[in-house]
Amino acid sequence: MAEGTGQDTPILRLAIAGLGTAGCMMLPAVHKHPHMQLTAAADVDAEPLEHFQRDFQVEIYRRVADLCQSSNVDAIYIATPTHLHTEHALMALEQGKHVVLEKPMALTLDDAERMIQTAERYGVQLVVGHSHSFERPIRAMREIVQSGELGRLRMLHNWYFTDWMYRPRNIGELNTALGGGVTFRQGSHQFDIIRMIGGGLVRSVRAMTGVWDAQRPTEGSHVVYLEFEDGTPATAVYSGYDRFHTAELTFGVGEQGQLANLAAYGRARQGLRALEGDEAEASLKRASAQYGGTRSRQASDPAPHPPFYGLTLASCERGDIRQSADGLTIYGEDDKRDIPLATDETGRDAVVRELYDAVVHHRPPAHSGRWGKANLEVCLAVLESAQKRQEIFLSHQIATHD
Amino acid sequence: MAEGTGQDTPILRLAIAGLGTAGCMMLPAVHKHPHMQLTAAADVDAEPLEHFQRDFQVEIYRRVADLCQSSNVDAIYIATPTHLHTEHALMALEQGKHVVLEKPMALTLDDAERMIQTAERYGVQLVVGHSHSFERPIRAMREIVQSGELGRLRMLHNWYFTDWMYRPRNIGELNTALGGGVTFRQGSHQFDIIRMIGGGLVRSVRAMTGVWDAQRPTEGSHVVYLEFEDGTPATAVYSGYDRFHTAELTFGVGEQGQLANLAAYGRARQGLRALEGDEAEASLKRASAQYGGTRSRQASDPAPHPPFYGLTLASCERGDIRQSADGLTIYGEDDKRDIPLATDETGRDAVVRELYDAVVHHRPPAHSGRWGKANLEVCLAVLESAQKRQEIFLSHQIATHD
Repeated sequence: MAEGTGQDTPILRLAIAGLGTAGCMMLPAVHKHPHMQLTAAADVDAEPLEHFQRDFQVEIYRRVADLCQSSNVDAIYIATPTHLHTEHALMALEQGKHVVLEKPMALTLDDAERMIQTAERYGVQLVVGHSHSFERPIRAMREIVQSGELGRLRMLHNWYFTDWMYRPRNIGELNTALGGGVTFRQGSHQFDIIRMIGGGLVRSVRAMTGVWDAQRPTEGSHVVYLEFEDGTPATAVYSGYDRFHTAELTFGVGEQGQLANLAAYGRARQGLRALEGDEAEASLKRASAQYGGTRSRQASDPAPHPPFYGLTLASCERGDIRQSADGLTIYGEDDKRDIPLATDETGRDAVVRELYDAVVHHRPPAHSGRWGKANLEVCLAVLESAQKRQEIFLSHQIATHD
Repeated sequence: MAEGTGQDTPILRLAIAGLGTAGCMMLPAVHKHPHMQLTAAADVDAEPLEHFQRDFQVEIYRRVADLCQSSNVDAIYIATPTHLHTEHALMALEQGKHVVLEKPMALTLDDAERMIQTAERYGVQLVVGHSHSFERPIRAMREIVQSGELGRLRMLHNWYFTDWMYRPRNIGELNTALGGGVTFRQGSHQFDIIRMIGGGLVRSVRAMTGVWDAQRPTEGSHVVYLEFEDGTPATAVYSGYDRFHTAELTFGVGEQGQLANLAAYGRARQGLRALEGDEAEASLKRASAQYGGTRSRQASDPAPHPPFYGLTLASCERGDIRQSADGLTIYGEDDKRDIPLATDETGRDAVVRELYDAVVHHRPPAHSGRWGKANLEVCLAVLESAQKRQEIFLSHQIATHD
């Protein structure tokens, strides 16, 4: 680490591997952290990389392997395609770099375990994220559940209906074998939220996935019953088919805390239909998502509301908890009250903070490698349960780190 | 049957056994049907019975056995406590009376089977209802699913959060062994809705029930994953603990099509707390629900909206369907459109019509004895799955009769 403003606050030098959607969305959080410095980036495409260098005057690399050799990098945020996570994370860890790894962390539990053990062997931190469970409304729900003020958690639900399947996608996002489809991509958020609030220890999963559109042959929906060790049941329902949107049930507020455009019905599906073929779609996705693209530029706009990852409802013995437009609503024993939540820390701010605190203050991260592996186990169990049409019992779960 | 207005429209003479909530709520439907005549009633309590006789000049009986002997009765609506259903229904069927039996039809599959076989042996009709699956919004959803215009059904959900557990209850309603608790009492509606829309053939159930209040030791919540034979998943979530109400998600409209009083937070729980003991509660329940009571008098008020049994969402391959305030919303391929639904036929009107058409026009009832038995099988499987913490496979399901 570089010299910082004081002994307790050294500068942590971060590199970003992969300048797609995830990589770009992390930038505001990196810039916002007072002791984090962006020092390098890697991407297979020259264009976003050069754009990035012009903007930030950092080292740039076409290969993650070369980035990992840099002596100006303490930690690497790995936001490359999912099927490359293990290879890239191992390279980084073996060079003694701390790693933040996008979810899902890998495609197999063996790969996840290799990364965890490698991080332990090299004495570096492995944080898995961003996931929406880092966000304040979810953490605030967890705090209330954990405090016991409403009694024991008794059930927990998340519904999220979006246009995920019809927004421009690259090949990997539409191929389950490469970590595509909503179960890997969005379930990894949803199950993380549920495990975070519910205490982490899922006993079993019963689920069905759905491929409703033969043109996009990957999971576009799932219905998941989860049961925690202590008997608490939970459900996770997702549809990415751009029809009913759960924003209708969440005060019109969307995933980034922005107001969703519910009036523009079916816009994603219609936009996609206008494109000519997979290559046009992949190009549009690149143009929109990669660094310098239209979407990446919006990432730092301030959000008017806390973020909503769909409708989350937690029921305790003596009260229910739901997100309100600007915080939480507690449906208590005698009254219903609103708790406002600040929007000053985004979920990605929390990722960066978790990494920094783990590395500098030796504070164990909530979203550790083992937490990420437990999340991956749920994703894989959902796919397996749907395929075998039977309940799948889990064995790699760990408790929420409060 | 008595002579009617014509050969095709004889008068069917109906008796009501049990003048509690269910019995009273059926009255407007009986009066509305042009060829149905109310000729008798039975109840253990003299007071509502005499009140009933003054109002309708019908035969009255203190014992269902005596009612079954009446030669002025063609059909009996059995709305006595659940644990007495089998005894009362068998008496009626063996006297050659057609029967409408409240849900859940029995407490065991053996009892259900005995009633079905007895009805067959005596050549009389057995209809199980009322359930909310008789209601127009649910039937309209089924028609759209069945028509195939939106492609195959892909998932189906019902959430219902109410104050059921804290409204005044009698002993039987709070004792699972007597058919009490929300799984028997409300699940029987919820699973009926799901089976009706989804085609009836549930393959398996995985569920957890909840008893959150030791003062009311019966199921007050459940979370149910159901999977149809064809792989379509469904969820049914219920909480009767009077906190969050799903009317918040259904345009403020409640079970009878009335606007729910969401402003009066926790009213049922607070009202109950003011009562002194079980006997005071049972008395209040009687005073409110039985014939002549406060609640029975409201039953014929016209509803401003179609009825909402919570939030029901059906997703087909090419569109989602949800109830709107005044009908259905179809989230289709290219647009979202509203279909208005008339409120002129209530669910109970449909029960009476189904009975009449079965008896007079030999039209097989959708809610037959075998349909009711299949519903009961789901209720029992939910309780068993929760107790054993495993998936329960079903073997008495029958297809929706469209």
